[in-house]
Amino acid sequence: MRLPPRVLVPGARFTAGEAVTLPEAEARHLEVSRFGPGAEVVLLDGAGSRAGAHLSSDGRKAVVCELLPARGEPLRRVTVLLGVGELSRVEWAVEKGTECGAARFVLVAAARSQRAHVAAAASKLERLRRIAAEAVKQCDRTVVPEILVPSPLAAGLGLCGGPLFVARPGAPRLVPGAVPDLTAVVAVGPEGGFDPDEEHLLDEAGAVPIGLGGRILRLETAVIAALVQLIDDDAR
Amino acid sequence: MRLPPRVLVPGARFTAGEAVTLPEAEARHLEVSRFGPGAEVVLLDGAGSRAGAHLSSDGRKAVVCELLPARGEPLRRVTVLLGVGELSRVEWAVEKGTECGAARFVLVAAARSQRAHVAAAASKLERLRRIAAEAVKQCDRTVVPEILVPSPLAAGLGLCGGPLFVARPGAPRLVPGAVPDLTAVVAVGPEGGFDPDEEHLLDEAGAVPIGLGGRILRLETAVIAALVQLIDDDAR
Repeated sequence: MRLPPRVLVPGARFTAGEAVTLPEAEARHLEVSRFGPGAEVVLLDGAGSRAGAHLSSDGRKAVVCELLPARGEPLRRVTVLLGVGELSRVEWAVEKGTECGAARFVLVAAARSQRAHVAAAASKLERLRRIAAEAVKQCDRTVVPEILVPSPLAAGLGLCGGPLFVARPGAPRLVPGAVPDLTAVVAVGPEGGFDPDEEHLLDEAGAVPIGLGGRILRLETAVIAALVQLIDDDAR
Repeated sequence: MRLPPRVLVPGARFTAGEAVTLPEAEARHLEVSRFGPGAEVVLLDGAGSRAGAHLSSDGRKAVVCELLPARGEPLRRVTVLLGVGELSRVEWAVEKGTECGAARFVLVAAARSQRAHVAAAASKLERLRRIAAEAVKQCDRTVVPEILVPSPLAAGLGLCGGPLFVARPGAPRLVPGAVPDLTAVVAVGPEGGFDPDEEHLLDEAGAVPIGLGGRILRLETAVIAALVQLIDDDAR
């Protein structure tokens, strides 16, 4: 079973019967993948709208045939406060975290984040956003998670509302159903973890430790393991 | 907090007061990482033995000072029947699955596995085993998971005992505590999933479908999401 290709058209408005101009990269990708005139596609604006459409004869537009309900979006909006590590690991964390349903990534320039890694992440925000967008298309969800520029933990916490969790070795697993709220935040430290000042800050903010099993997980593995516990609601 | 380096010495026997010759690659790695004579290391035989030791003056041996209890090993031994995909994804699945506590990976040449991918995985078993060994050291567990050569699903199933699960989109999450057994098997299909014949085989074998959320997960993400649900016992 091959799903119709998903095409991201940020800022577009979908109206049945009307044509939408595709971003050039998307049109080219469809052409290379041999989707010709009339081919069925699914349009996403990346912000919650989804529509079925057919490619125009020149492959540069798509004519909307029907609006579709959002899919792949968990009911709970989970923000990941992501301690910055090596760029490749941040990239994987964003890709995998998007697959697992994260609503937002707030990059954290943690005390133990290496400066070079923070600088790399800050200069590659557009790349990280593209990775999130590609993952949204691949995993068949509707909304592209936001990715915020690296900031210290205190500033990152200030951007977040809802119950706060922190991945901490040795802590107990989250009991399913324990989070009734529609938003939640989970902090995942960089390699070496958050430092004592940061842990204190998290404790002061009422962070509930959640365990990820009895082993030391890489950044990107920890993000997945935390999200699998926190996003336990069926996607709509 | 920096843990002492973990050093893998397959087949070694650890006895307090006796010296163990380190594999050349391990000795070189310690030297490059500036661990000198007398440095504290943790020796692993990869099969369940663990010992504290100190490097000898030439850095080629380590003298065992005490036997240590195993750590990082879940009580439940979970085998992953892993539908072969692109080599890079199989590598990540092995690395991440090892971090998450998998006991064994049985590679499955599934109906929808591409032949080239199966050939690549079969020819890179040693590389996959090295990746698992490195992950064991990194995540601070004790036993290196086995990795078995790709075989069709029926043959792979024949190698496994214990309750069988299959990752299937749309299925409900596993209820925590639902698996009382000390062994379990989880089948994760390749890109595109298992084909109808394979799904039938799994159903006949009594496989219980487990859901991984309402999105389409990549192979390596699915392995983590399944293991997080199946390995819910605290590591010893």
